[in-house]
Amino acid sequence: MLKGIAASKGYAIGKISIMTHQELTIDESTCESVELELTALKDAVVNSKEQLQALRVKTAENIGEHEAMVFDSHMMFLDDPEFVGAMEEAIQSEMKRAASAVEQVKLFFKNMFAQMDNAYMRERAADIVDVSNRIIKNILGISSEVNDLPENTIIVAHDLTPSDTAQLDKSKVIGFLTDIGGVTSHSAIMARSLEICAVVGMGDITSTVKNGMECIIDGIKGEVILSPDQETLEEYKSLAEAYRKKRIELKKYKDLKLAYKDGREILVAGNIGSVKDLDSVIENGADGIGLFRTEFVFMDRDVAPTEDEQFEIYKTVAERMSGKPVVIRTLDIGGDKQIPYLHLEQEMNPFLGLRAIRLCFKYEDMFKAQIKALLRAGVFGDVNIMLPMIGTIDEIRQAKKIIEKCKNELKEEGIPFKADTPVGIMIEIPAAAIAADILADEVDFFSIGTNDLIQYTLAVDRMNSNISHLYNPMNVSVLRLIEMSIKAAHKAGIWCGMCGEMAGDLRVTKTLLEMGLDEFSMSGSSILDVKELIYNELK
Amino acid sequence: MLKGIAASKGYAIGKISIMTHQELTIDESTCESVELELTALKDAVVNSKEQLQALRVKTAENIGEHEAMVFDSHMMFLDDPEFVGAMEEAIQSEMKRAASAVEQVKLFFKNMFAQMDNAYMRERAADIVDVSNRIIKNILGISSEVNDLPENTIIVAHDLTPSDTAQLDKSKVIGFLTDIGGVTSHSAIMARSLEICAVVGMGDITSTVKNGMECIIDGIKGEVILSPDQETLEEYKSLAEAYRKKRIELKKYKDLKLAYKDGREILVAGNIGSVKDLDSVIENGADGIGLFRTEFVFMDRDVAPTEDEQFEIYKTVAERMSGKPVVIRTLDIGGDKQIPYLHLEQEMNPFLGLRAIRLCFKYEDMFKAQIKALLRAGVFGDVNIMLPMIGTIDEIRQAKKIIEKCKNELKEEGIPFKADTPVGIMIEIPAAAIAADILADEVDFFSIGTNDLIQYTLAVDRMNSNISHLYNPMNVSVLRLIEMSIKAAHKAGIWCGMCGEMAGDLRVTKTLLEMGLDEFSMSGSSILDVKELIYNELK
Repeated sequence: MLKGIAASKGYAIGKISIMTHQELTIDESTCESVELELTALKDAVVNSKEQLQALRVKTAENIGEHEAMVFDSHMMFLDDPEFVGAMEEAIQSEMKRAASAVEQVKLFFKNMFAQMDNAYMRERAADIVDVSNRIIKNILGISSEVNDLPENTIIVAHDLTPSDTAQLDKSKVIGFLTDIGGVTSHSAIMARSLEICAVVGMGDITSTVKNGMECIIDGIKGEVILSPDQETLEEYKSLAEAYRKKRIELKKYKDLKLAYKDGREILVAGNIGSVKDLDSVIENGADGIGLFRTEFVFMDRDVAPTEDEQFEIYKTVAERMSGKPVVIRTLDIGGDKQIPYLHLEQEMNPFLGLRAIRLCFKYEDMFKAQIKALLRAGVFGDVNIMLPMIGTIDEIRQAKKIIEKCKNELKEEGIPFKADTPVGIMIEIPAAAIAADILADEVDFFSIGTNDLIQYTLAVDRMNSNISHLYNPMNVSVLRLIEMSIKAAHKAGIWCGMCGEMAGDLRVTKTLLEMGLDEFSMSGSSILDVKELIYNELK
Repeated sequence: MLKGIAASKGYAIGKISIMTHQELTIDESTCESVELELTALKDAVVNSKEQLQALRVKTAENIGEHEAMVFDSHMMFLDDPEFVGAMEEAIQSEMKRAASAVEQVKLFFKNMFAQMDNAYMRERAADIVDVSNRIIKNILGISSEVNDLPENTIIVAHDLTPSDTAQLDKSKVIGFLTDIGGVTSHSAIMARSLEICAVVGMGDITSTVKNGMECIIDGIKGEVILSPDQETLEEYKSLAEAYRKKRIELKKYKDLKLAYKDGREILVAGNIGSVKDLDSVIENGADGIGLFRTEFVFMDRDVAPTEDEQFEIYKTVAERMSGKPVVIRTLDIGGDKQIPYLHLEQEMNPFLGLRAIRLCFKYEDMFKAQIKALLRAGVFGDVNIMLPMIGTIDEIRQAKKIIEKCKNELKEEGIPFKADTPVGIMIEIPAAAIAADILADEVDFFSIGTNDLIQYTLAVDRMNSNISHLYNPMNVSVLRLIEMSIKAAHKAGIWCGMCGEMAGDLRVTKTLLEMGLDEFSMSGSSILDVKELIYNELK
């Protein structure tokens, strides 16, 4: 039995298929015709571009816009005249064959980047290798596609790159295991999006297993059993069946209304990133939307969406939630999330940089278009505006001034809107929690963003595997800040929710109930578990 | 009168000298002898390396190790076979002259790096241009040195690079003005180290002034007056004289002992980075050392310093402070401070990454050598061990376990040490301040590191000019955390100091006195001002 990091819940029982990267054999002899080689290179570049474009679209659709963006940088390399030019040059001046010319340029750049002692540069090196290999394969006529896999396949790989994952066939692949990665690594996030179970960070699973080996993944405990005996197999078959049944049984909590003993209602709401996510959230009985991340409305585009475009989206969400509260967070870009048309500078510490509301104040026209769309959508449901990354009362006042300006403009334009749309803030910067008593008087609600709150309170970037063990939601200071925020909200007569991952973490649900949290918002798949626990705690 | 950012205090009255970068004229014709050009290139590379080595040493001595490190990356380029090889290739295959070959490779790499939309890459592009120009100048026989300047020169530049600043002659240059930069930019920090007055971030001062223009810098208000009339000149001459006199007058506070009304003593201590800094701190009447940053003991070396080497340094500091308290912070590397021999990875958010105590736990042998050196130095003065970046009680316990181990080893080795050396922590992570009541029971003192505490509490990287306006020491949440820490310390019967920049900020001294802070530690140059203010507040 092997241990790893449980990255995506569930059980998988199937056969292993190891995903390795093929060795490329390159003919280093002098070419016969420079012209022919140049044409071969040109065709391969065109083909590569088409493949990348297709992969990009497929990934954006199946996994997410953010995950798809890596292919943009691959395509950028193909458009770089220095890069392809150097290959042509090697063919012309050294009579190299096309594949060998690509290889030479690949190694040149790879070494260049790799020598720099810098993770960002090494990633660029990996991108260059990836895209160069794609060109070489196209020249040599080798397919980049993953071969057809049998059903119930468990993929084993050192790591799954975005290219790899975009090509996984969900009807065949039921789980995967990787040597590296953590709960928040790209492959883990993708596994959860794809709803296939996964254990990552296994150390050296690739060299431990063989193709075709029978394997059980316990995606709840993060355990893997290779070549299980019949008894174990039966045991896990019933566990998997029980898990499936439990998922069905939980449906009885779907329409249950929850409340504290004093009658104050408790909402278990859903987090969404797009209209598409509504299905899962509604199906799991969300009492509302506690967080609509509007970043994705702004991504995958050449310019920011117009007020009207946004209005249609927000209106759809408001209508589909049929009167239930919908909390829509204004643009939270920057940090690790980028939109290309803003041309944001790379920052030394992006998490402590120009992001979210800070950025919106800088691009006020863009911010106003969003606010106006939100005010207009309020006519069609219970829309609530939520401001991210608020640290001080000055920022709240500045935002409210802009919101007033938007109302005046809509009035002048004669466009209907909801004038008393509630405005709340994320509590995700320690300063906001510490001054929650002061901020509460200026807003209509709080929602605690635990992911960032924990990061800043503990000074730990949880994406950094060197120190992610220090990222601890149970830390006493974190819990104190949460309690301070809830108390301050109630004292000011406003409600306080939570939309970070902690809201769906069953280990802390009881504590949060003791603190009196009003709303728990989480991904659709956790809603029923939390509803069940709250029901049992309070019954 | 022009306004800018006051970056280094004082007044300067002198003549302007604009520092521009010379245009290089390059002969693009075919060369006569490939051999001669290759030799010219080779000699120029050797000369460049020697110049850079000399600059590196000079900078490390005069300004600082950190500032000197940029020249290491310049030298790295010269050692990169791809870089110099491409130049040789251009001479051989295209019969280019050496300077033109360097120019071609320079532009190739410059464009490569610059196209990537990324500040780090653009900096690398600037480095490549800088080092390539140095090679070209060496080929063409143009000096890279700044020409001799007359006395009382005020340098005006777009920005001062480390290369520029390393070459400033302090006996001639009395101040400088730059178009860009902020209070914490390299040039500003260097100005304060060099004790020459400076106003930065002036926008477009370079094209406003002419060489030889008379100029007054008010480094206190951040104001610049060009071609002043006689009256203004006289006014500033007396201001400068008054400033000089005030510096002398303040000396009367040098040996003054300060105390609260209840008799509890107040220490005004000094921050140092090396033994060299002791002079200024002692001269200004420091009541102790509140922060010895030991990073510099570990820099400018190929391997970590041994226990004995460190012991000698800590002993010297303890002895020279003749019984006054000396608080020595254990290695606080990582974040923006690197030591090459640890080969630390570049992190996405270094301020939220593997730094300080987190790193020391990983390199326990290195940490133990430092602890043992500190315990031994305790025999020669009032040495206090201070642990940086503590967030939780677990970290304190882990560190104390290691300290106990060190004591046992010293005992076994029969080496004298101070067994009851006090152990304290920096309060610089919000979690530590919020749980100060819990942590206080485990340590002998607190010292509040406001620079980081403010950064994390407000989620603001103050080095990031896009959002540095949000970095506010007067923020109510920051002040609440400071008060919580002081109260918790006193309740547990331990003292609480402060060693961030805020400790020397006269705008908050009164507030900190009201909170009951026991120790204020700052750079030598601020000690007397703070002593004077405290004296006047409490008399």
